[in-house]
Amino acid sequence: MTYCLAIKVKEGLVFASDSRTNAGVDHVSTYSKMHNFSWPGKRSFVLLSSGNLATTQAVVKKIRTDAEDATVTSLRNVSNMDAAVNYVGKVSADIQRAQAERDTAKSNFEATFLFGGQISGHESGIFLIYPQGNFIHESAEQPFLQVGETKYGKPILDRVIRPDTQLELAGRCAIVSINSTIRSNLTVGPPIELLLYTNDSLNEGRHLTLAESDPFYQTLSDAWSEGLRHALNGLPPFEWEQQLKTAQVVQETGPSQVMG
Amino acid sequence: MTYCLAIKVKEGLVFASDSRTNAGVDHVSTYSKMHNFSWPGKRSFVLLSSGNLATTQAVVKKIRTDAEDATVTSLRNVSNMDAAVNYVGKVSADIQRAQAERDTAKSNFEATFLFGGQISGHESGIFLIYPQGNFIHESAEQPFLQVGETKYGKPILDRVIRPDTQLELAGRCAIVSINSTIRSNLTVGPPIELLLYTNDSLNEGRHLTLAESDPFYQTLSDAWSEGLRHALNGLPPFEWEQQLKTAQVVQETGPSQVMG
Repeated sequence: MTYCLAIKVKEGLVFASDSRTNAGVDHVSTYSKMHNFSWPGKRSFVLLSSGNLATTQAVVKKIRTDAEDATVTSLRNVSNMDAAVNYVGKVSADIQRAQAERDTAKSNFEATFLFGGQISGHESGIFLIYPQGNFIHESAEQPFLQVGETKYGKPILDRVIRPDTQLELAGRCAIVSINSTIRSNLTVGPPIELLLYTNDSLNEGRHLTLAESDPFYQTLSDAWSEGLRHALNGLPPFEWEQQLKTAQVVQETGPSQVMG
Repeated sequence: MTYCLAIKVKEGLVFASDSRTNAGVDHVSTYSKMHNFSWPGKRSFVLLSSGNLATTQAVVKKIRTDAEDATVTSLRNVSNMDAAVNYVGKVSADIQRAQAERDTAKSNFEATFLFGGQISGHESGIFLIYPQGNFIHESAEQPFLQVGETKYGKPILDRVIRPDTQLELAGRCAIVSINSTIRSNLTVGPPIELLLYTNDSLNEGRHLTLAESDPFYQTLSDAWSEGLRHALNGLPPFEWEQQLKTAQVVQETGPSQVMG
């Protein structure tokens, strides 16, 4: 399994991914699922991959080789974000179909992607690309997209992420969302990769790879656990606890000794 | 779907359940999934149900009618918790088998239960009963059990619940766990039922039904959202944010004017 997410806020884009791949419970490996395609000052894209690793590796390779060849459509020459995501969806669907045609065992070659970025002079955007190559974008009501093992990390995003959330805060929220998933599910694992893209920067963005031993990651994880405990301790008491407390106060402040 | 959970801490037991049932997306109803079987001073049990509603209703009815009949095994006369959970598992498996024998359409009659309680002179316990009637209990490393739509509400339990967690705190944590699930998933819905059983009380426990409009539930939900935001704001800044802040401070405290 996998857990990747992308967030769009007013300031820019957040991309985050775990790094665990597995075939059954035996073949467990670590692979980066975050791929950056940037032409500084002109355009910058990020692709997060989940699904069949042979498919996703082939898709990334095809995107890179197309971009070297000026005679074909590629991320280097598409004219807008819609054309960019359409191109990636077509590359993915074509590769899956080619694999399926050779297959004799009804294997699953499917891959799902989160894709986003910005082309100079256009608005930035994030998209979820289905295995069939079609896609959806985020919206003001749904400013984040997830793929893979999405449920554990969704409540914190549902409560916190709004279009006006500050970019770095959304980034920390993404780390928390993946960290919580890693703690609850074995098929999602470190390191966590995070990329923050500031709108109109048209650069590669700020990229972090957070291993479990990373001091910043540990501090953040501990601070989050502490913050949750604090939040839980701040919840209102049940009615009977208040009554018990009142009873106790009365007892403690009982009648004073008469002194003469 | 459904979301039920049971927690065992040193002080006692926590049971919590949502109340949504559905058949496809059309037949959406509200049913209590929490059932109490108590003989004050002697024994007290709680059953949380998920799965086929006809099965779970039949199981609860059978448990109640058996308890009225002194000549058969029932929750009223079993001698220990193991016999109690075995009895419930057998009732459930028998009812499912009877339904399956009449079936011509490969329908799903399965039901899964969380069951727990205490018999005078014995330790309290919680159990997850599989559709097949066999069961598992909690452990010190895994002091809670969940059934149904379990993933959204698991991270908070993983981080907070330990055997020495205070009973009421574990109860509030259970409400938060279900509240988060309700916000993220349509198939889990209010009201939330909560039951706190204090060890050796051998009574029905403290029972709450929290509708969405309940003032305590609203206060708790708001306080939790606020607490999460506070926890998020308390996370350590990224390295570049610290540098920016330092740069700013230097600027603000720049060279003092020389006065003469």
